[in-house]
Formats: sequence, C-alpha cells, structure tokens
Amino acid sequence: MNGDTVRWQVREQRPITYDVIKAKHLFHPDNRALLLPGLREGGRRFVVLDDHVALLHGEAIRAWFTHHEIDARIAIFPSGEEHKTFDSYQELLHELDAFPIHRRDEPIIAIGGGVLTDVVGFAAASYRRSVPHIKVPTTLMGYVDASIGIKVGINFNGHKNRLGSFEPPLAVFLDKTFLRTVPRRHLLNGVCEIIKLAIIRDAALFEQLEADGVRSITAFFANKAGDAILDRAVGGMLEELTPNLYEDTLERKVDFGHTFSYGLEARHQHRLLHGEAVLLDILVSSGLAQQRGLLAEHELTRIFSLVECLGIELDTTVLDVDSIWQSLLERIEHRNGKQRVPVPTGLGQCVFLNDITHQELEIAVLALHARMTASHEPALER
Amino acid sequence: MNGDTVRWQVREQRPITYDVIKAKHLFHPDNRALLLPGLREGGRRFVVLDDHVALLHGEAIRAWFTHHEIDARIAIFPSGEEHKTFDSYQELLHELDAFPIHRRDEPIIAIGGGVLTDVVGFAAASYRRSVPHIKVPTTLMGYVDASIGIKVGINFNGHKNRLGSFEPPLAVFLDKTFLRTVPRRHLLNGVCEIIKLAIIRDAALFEQLEADGVRSITAFFANKAGDAILDRAVGGMLEELTPNLYEDTLERKVDFGHTFSYGLEARHQHRLLHGEAVLLDILVSSGLAQQRGLLAEHELTRIFSLVECLGIELDTTVLDVDSIWQSLLERIEHRNGKQRVPVPTGLGQCVFLNDITHQELEIAVLALHARMTASHEPALER
Repeated sequence: MNGDTVRWQVREQRPITYDVIKAKHLFHPDNRALLLPGLREGGRRFVVLDDHVALLHGEAIRAWFTHHEIDARIAIFPSGEEHKTFDSYQELLHELDAFPIHRRDEPIIAIGGGVLTDVVGFAAASYRRSVPHIKVPTTLMGYVDASIGIKVGINFNGHKNRLGSFEPPLAVFLDKTFLRTVPRRHLLNGVCEIIKLAIIRDAALFEQLEADGVRSITAFFANKAGDAILDRAVGGMLEELTPNLYEDTLERKVDFGHTFSYGLEARHQHRLLHGEAVLLDILVSSGLAQQRGLLAEHELTRIFSLVECLGIELDTTVLDVDSIWQSLLERIEHRNGKQRVPVPTGLGQCVFLNDITHQELEIAVLALHARMTASHEPALER
Repeated sequence: MNGDTVRWQVREQRPITYDVIKAKHLFHPDNRALLLPGLREGGRRFVVLDDHVALLHGEAIRAWFTHHEIDARIAIFPSGEEHKTFDSYQELLHELDAFPIHRRDEPIIAIGGGVLTDVVGFAAASYRRSVPHIKVPTTLMGYVDASIGIKVGINFNGHKNRLGSFEPPLAVFLDKTFLRTVPRRHLLNGVCEIIKLAIIRDAALFEQLEADGVRSITAFFANKAGDAILDRAVGGMLEELTPNLYEDTLERKVDFGHTFSYGLEARHQHRLLHGEAVLLDILVSSGLAQQRGLLAEHELTRIFSLVECLGIELDTTVLDVDSIWQSLLERIEHRNGKQRVPVPTGLGQCVFLNDITHQELEIAVLALHARMTASHEPALER
C-alpha cells in the first residue's frame, strides 16, 4: 500500500537531573537543606508523613516548617505495603487538590519508607502531569533502594507496582538519624537489598558486610563502618540505575532477587517484608546457579553464612515451586518475552538466564529447605 | 548547619522520538503501516476504539487485525468529554490487565477522538510504568491537536486534565478518511484549534483559512487546499510543541485560548465542545488585546469575520466575567504564579500578559456580547 509518509519527526532530548544529598539532622531548625535554590521562599508545601515517623519525629518536622515560615499541609499516611493501593493514591490526590500549590516551585515532600515515597511519587507524577517532589526516606529500605531511583508506583489488581511512573525527584535527602528509630526487623529488611547488590555486582561490599555488618546493624549504621557500607550501597545502586533509568535495557542486575519474590510478596503480603521476599529469591537463584556449576559451592556457603550471621530470620515455609514458577511466567511479560533472570557466577559477578526449567527450580527449592533445616539443627549434630 | 553534602548527582539524557505519519486508508487490508518495525509479529494488541467509530469502521478495523493474524482485544470506549474520568481510566486499566501483553513490542492502539487518546495515553503511561501506545485520531480535533503531542490525561475533581502524564507515543497515524464521518459541529470543533494557531503564530495559515476554509470544511479536508491547511496546522503545532515538550517554558503560544476556556469548559461540559470554549477565549483575549492597543481594530474584525464565514456558531451566553476571572486565577497556580496569557499583537504574532485586571476582562466580555449581537441583526439594520 503506497501513500504512507512519515511527515513529521519529533526528536528531542529530555535532561534528567537530580541530587542524592546526605543531610544530617534534616529537620534541625537551623538546617536549610530542604530550602533548595529556585524554590518559592516561604510559600506552601504539601507534606506526606508516615504515621510511625509522625509519632516519633512529627513535632520536630512541624516546627521546622513553622520556623522557616512555610505554610505546610501535613498529610499522615499509614505504614505498610497494604496501603500501596489505588484507593490510597486517589485519596492522596484529593487531599493534594484541596491545597493549591504552584506547579513548579512548591514541591511535594514525601517523608517515610519505600511504600510512602512510591505512592507519593506516583501522585506527584500524575498531578498536573507532574509536579516536583522531594523524597526523605526514613527506613533503610528507602535509604539504599526505594527512594534513590526514579521508579514510583502502586499495587493494582493483585500485582505489585502494576501502575506507576518513572518520575525523577527534585532531590533525595538521606538523613541517617531516622534509622535509629527503625525496628530491627525493618532494618534487616533494608540489609537484604544491600546483600543483593553485594552478591550480584560488588564483592568488596560483600566483604564489608561480612566484616562489619553485625556491629553496623547494632549501631543503626551510625558507626564509621556502617556509614561506609551505606555509601557503597547507595553509590553502587545509583551506578546501576543511572545509565538505564527508564529500563531501556531489560537485563538489570538490580533485578536479582526480584523474579520469584514478586509472586511471594503479593501472596504473603502480611507475612513477608519486601526485603525478606527478595532474600528468599536470592537464595533460590544462587542455589540454582550452584546447581548449574555457575557458582562455587564455597561461595554459596558464604552467602548462607552471611545471612545467618547477620541474624536475618526467613520464613521458608512460604516457598513453593508452583507459585514461584507462576511468578517467573508473569515476569516474562514484564521482561518482554524472556526470563532474563540474573544469577551470580561468583561473588560480585553475574549472568542472565533465559532457560530456567520448572524442574531445576524444584531442585533449588528442595535444596534450600534442606540447607535451612540443617543449619537450624543443634550444633552437636552438625 | 554544616555537614550536608551533595553526595551523588544523577545526570542523564532521555531521548524522545516519535513520528507523526500520514497514512491513507490505514485499515485497508493491504496497509501495513501499523506493523511498525521492531514490533512482535502477530502477537497481541489491546485496542481501544471509540463507540461511534466502531459503528462506522469497526468491521474494517477488526478485519485488518484478523488479516494480519494479530490477536486483538478491542475495547469500546464511549465518546464525549463526560467519559474523561478517573473511573473510565481505572476501568480501562482493569480491562488491560486482563489481557496480558508484552511490555515493549505489543503497543496499545488508541483509535478515537481527543478524549479517547488522552485517557488511553494516560493508561498506557501508568501501566507497568509505561507501555508503548499508538494514536490514531478519528476527529479533526485529534488530528491537528490532541493526538500529535505527548500530553495525556483525565479530568479530576471538577478540573480539566488535572491528572495525566507527558507520554510520548510510539507513533501517530493521521488518516483523513476518518474525517469524512465526523459530524459538522465536531469538524468545526477542530477548526477552532487551527484558527488558534493561525492567529497566534501563522498569518499565512490565517489567509489559507480565509481563502479555502469554507470549501475545505465542506469537503471534509479531502480537497488539495484542505490538505494544505491540515499539513500547515499539524506542522505548526509540532514546531511549537517540540522544543518545549515538557513545558519547561510556561509561556506557550499554544496556550492561546486556553486560559478563560478552562473554567467555561468544566462548567458547561454538556453545552460546549473544547474548541468552542477555546474560540470564545480567543475572542475575549483578542478583544482585550485590541482594547490595550496591541491589536488593530481591522485585525480584530478579520478574526470575527473568519469565524462568521466559516459558520462556527458560538453560545456566548455562557460567558460571564466572574467565572472566567476564576479560571484565570486557577491558571496562575498552573503557570507557577503568573498569568502568562498569550494575546495577539497582529495576525501571527503575540505577547504574554501578566497584569490582566477583572475590569478590563469585564469590558472585553461586554464588547464581545455587543459585537455578536450586532452581527446577528438583520442585514438591513447594519
């Protein structure tokens, strides 16, 4: 059929630019970090604050805005994955629309964990086709993972992050003082993402975790070694994300631990934290790599030993082959027709597999159950 | 407060690239234009089709997909601004999620007017944080305006396009054969946006409308002169949009007619089409420019004469000063604190005003009412 012509070509470059800023005591009255240049002086800010964080730090946060003569509307958002919903998103948009802000120089400020910054980021992305937002993670998961990239979103129709945007923030402020009030299980939740990065791309970070992990966790990462671990984790994550912000490449190292976990998490929302599901996936994927001869047995042992020594408790009873197989099938749509599952070929290295079978997944799960049972038997019998 | 450090800077460029393709008889069985290179051969397509277009062209469209062995799920979407809602958006996402498509090589196809391509584009932008979409406008408004840019969205909380995205399409296909079945009032609706471009940036286009407008409308733009008008309108629109796709510059010529119309449209959704509201705004803005001595009286007269000779009927009774003043105030939030209202300083030229007063708006509306009444009196009395 003739007569069809490309008549006009739209060709443009969109600059993406934001800073991830380490800021101690962000809400100390004298701290002016949040008053970024170019923002409206005083003016209004729509602030979304995690309900747990509000109990612990709400007063200081409110005082900071008053001190800087900013008319802040502080919306309290409930903690937890179960609130990462379409309804929460819609409700947030109604609250936002009732508090008129300038489109460009009065950014929304999201203060909370990964769920909160994801939902608020998506609301900011959608409102007036995007208004600026600032993220202040208050959990370790937010600090090393959820807040520092540009992915925002909500769960939908039983699927994790089925709706969302790639929405660059105006800035991200990392304030470790919030970590001191994070409960231990939630701190370990973030540690799981650090373990992910270490295994798949950074052997030195793995060694740092082996050497300094335990005391850094005890110190809420306020110690020097803990600081070094976080810096390396954040820097490494950003090195992976930056050249591929919009996932033009679907083979992503940071997807390690994010294939089988996907369905586990949706199915066991009330039992598993995100990092725990990711770690279960990591252990299955690493076991599978060992079965294939890609990962040495002693390296697999080091991975299990690290998990044990850091004191991360895993509920392996949620692991069943059929549901993680389903999860893999679903991820194939998302990865445009291929499995693209990253597995380690040594600590700090990886390949992507496209031919994982149901049978080898079954063997990997059985081996994992056997190993976990063995490690929990009394020392005498080992 | 010391100790704050910009630790990591994210700096990337995102390429935006898409083609606007003139394609006659897009759904003729032999036409392969929609089978763009890089797409999955055969495969699946989620297609959203306007209900009026489905009655007229649905059979041919279904046959095209069958002929090319594509498993298409065709969702019918009702025509009209009243369906540009959060509920329609949510429902569309549920339908989409029930028909699994690859994330990258099975684009969503939107076939319909501006409302439809806006809602579908926003759904595509949100689903899995963006899946590709193709737009096929079937109205003149879609052809020259709504479909060719990257703005998508829905109305929310009583406000036009309060939610949405900037979402570049994979491609836009312009097929004039659809225009033949557009009712006259809706054809004129699109003409209003052409008039907008002509007055604010393109005197030659204005002259084309004066010379060939009437017969081009009668011919549904299938004549040579009509083709030239559409090419010039689309090309001009894209020249305005392309360097400012994300509205980094808030002073936009294409916002001519989109300040006072904003509230009118929301308030009189069932009486006014988008283009009609825009044209009312154009006439108020042009009158205001004439009052200020920016636009010559004879140029204002040419504008009114063109509108009359093209046979566009306007319901001026909806114009009241208080509501269009409210509309201006609302736009100030959207334009980050300033009015930034484009008004013509001659045919094809403009300035942006930031100091429009309630009083001069009142005078402009009164003058408009007077002029419209005069022009509708019997010829004898003129």
